[in-house]
Amino acid sequence: MAPTSKTNRVTIKTVAADAGVSVAAVSKVLRDAYGVSDALRARVQASMEKLNYRPHAGARAMRGRTYTLGILLPDMRNPFFADILAGVNEALERTQYQTMIGVSRSAETIEMSLIDSMIDRQMDGLIMIGPRMPPETAEAVSTRIPTAVVGYHVPQLATLDTANNDDVAGAAQVVRHLATNGYRRITMVTLAVPTKNVVVTVQRERGYREAMKERGLAQHINIVPADQTAREVQTAVRHLLESRHRPEALFCWTDMVALHALSVAKDLGLSVPGDLAIVGYDNTIYCDLAQNSLTSVDQSGQVLGLQAARLLIERIDGRQQGDHFVVSPRLVVRGSSRPRPS
Amino acid sequence: MAPTSKTNRVTIKTVAADAGVSVAAVSKVLRDAYGVSDALRARVQASMEKLNYRPHAGARAMRGRTYTLGILLPDMRNPFFADILAGVNEALERTQYQTMIGVSRSAETIEMSLIDSMIDRQMDGLIMIGPRMPPETAEAVSTRIPTAVVGYHVPQLATLDTANNDDVAGAAQVVRHLATNGYRRITMVTLAVPTKNVVVTVQRERGYREAMKERGLAQHINIVPADQTAREVQTAVRHLLESRHRPEALFCWTDMVALHALSVAKDLGLSVPGDLAIVGYDNTIYCDLAQNSLTSVDQSGQVLGLQAARLLIERIDGRQQGDHFVVSPRLVVRGSSRPRPS
Repeated sequence: MAPTSKTNRVTIKTVAADAGVSVAAVSKVLRDAYGVSDALRARVQASMEKLNYRPHAGARAMRGRTYTLGILLPDMRNPFFADILAGVNEALERTQYQTMIGVSRSAETIEMSLIDSMIDRQMDGLIMIGPRMPPETAEAVSTRIPTAVVGYHVPQLATLDTANNDDVAGAAQVVRHLATNGYRRITMVTLAVPTKNVVVTVQRERGYREAMKERGLAQHINIVPADQTAREVQTAVRHLLESRHRPEALFCWTDMVALHALSVAKDLGLSVPGDLAIVGYDNTIYCDLAQNSLTSVDQSGQVLGLQAARLLIERIDGRQQGDHFVVSPRLVVRGSSRPRPS
Repeated sequence: MAPTSKTNRVTIKTVAADAGVSVAAVSKVLRDAYGVSDALRARVQASMEKLNYRPHAGARAMRGRTYTLGILLPDMRNPFFADILAGVNEALERTQYQTMIGVSRSAETIEMSLIDSMIDRQMDGLIMIGPRMPPETAEAVSTRIPTAVVGYHVPQLATLDTANNDDVAGAAQVVRHLATNGYRRITMVTLAVPTKNVVVTVQRERGYREAMKERGLAQHINIVPADQTAREVQTAVRHLLESRHRPEALFCWTDMVALHALSVAKDLGLSVPGDLAIVGYDNTIYCDLAQNSLTSVDQSGQVLGLQAARLLIERIDGRQQGDHFVVSPRLVVRGSSRPRPS
């Protein structure tokens, strides 16, 4: 193919130039606005045919579905989301559906703007992963576009579907495991900001608190919030590990935080688990690497993604009742939480 | 807001039902097809107005840009891509532009189908990251939609822009650093399949080969291909490390591979760098964690993303010449490649 110094994409401007009319006039013809003369219409249509003007997504969508699902991700750094997306892809493998991902950077304003954009772009449905918006907003979104949500606890809503693991049970499993292995001063590192019950970290905090009480460790309950940036997490963990009453174990709300905790512990010359046990959540691919050997809760991210996609397609196909799928979490024990030497 | 058991999104079906005509008839009116009677048009338009039928993305796009850029990613597992996307977001921060991401799973057929879909969805431009397609195809894509590419060497093309690091120089830096630190049997682990010069791994293989010759280590040149899956990478590395002539150092084409190599070495009881030096590429956030302490080449992913987005917007604004940005790579030395004890 000979290099060309000019793109040959046919746009509304090309059509206008060819027909010798204004862009506004072409737009009127395309929108079938009032007051368009038959002569103008014929002229513009002739140019569109001659130039092989590509029919718009909108125009094609009018004939049916676009077979595109929008996915709203909080960020690109958490490896857990790749597991969820693998499940979504698995569900869609034999369908015509494609996905397009918007990244909200955990900001509600970006979330809303991306959702508007996805509706404008004719997505057939929306999968939101751990969104920041309050449940009223999620409900309002679901009245505009078929919606499934992963990692968001709204079992009362009928207008959308959800796929979750039981976060309360997962956190309780971590505490019981650590307590059984001889750890008492168990501190939880959680995500700063969220206070709403819909959020997974708030559910995990509840499970942590309940299990600490159940094991007679109420006096050791300590929940430390940290932002998601590497710097914030490392500062919070360092502060904890340098404190006079250093925790014996850290339960981190997600593996990324636990990986940073492993790093800080190593920097401070602490051995894991000799001086400090560390447990994560999500059982991402990094847990299994020998240099991490990180105990973590497997919430079956791939299953969650698969279920969310299936539920969404059922919803697109017309189901109107809410379907709320919950999977049981499973603790995967590795070296970072071996029994404490007594 | 009272829960509702039904989405209230107005679709073409709603309009057809309200107007008491077929969906096909509404579609004809919307497409301004030939043979639509004035009476039918008036009836359908009245229903659309009454129901406040949401104007389509396409119809709005006709009035100008959609301010949405498509991004084509090979996969969601490589943490390097998050750096590139952070740069893209930085470039777009003060603009109206949003991004939507499609994940090709490194398959050319999925790439092409996503690109069609992005063009259909009225994206103003496209950023491709390490695409699999041959340069002729990339050129053809760029004649359909303004295009910038990251991690793809096509300096000869004028119809698209690129942002790259000098992969030949980056790989050569790794070899020179290892050779200076006393390592001679330096093996490169590369990505299976690609053989085209446009691909970053092929460029890095060239840099590795040239620098090995330059340092008088031609007899030790060994390039081992592996797929990107965890299992494939670990199998290939294990095979190497259990062989009779175990390499003294591994140069891995990307950090993810190097992290797996660290894990296999630890599993086999090899100390890093005592028994084996390991170097990665991309200088992702995991390199800095103390449990990895991984020497890596920083190719300034964020700068590449930023430049690609800037170049793309210039291209959308009308620039027609090709602009090919190249940043110099920089080796970041950490514990995994300390001088070899002699």
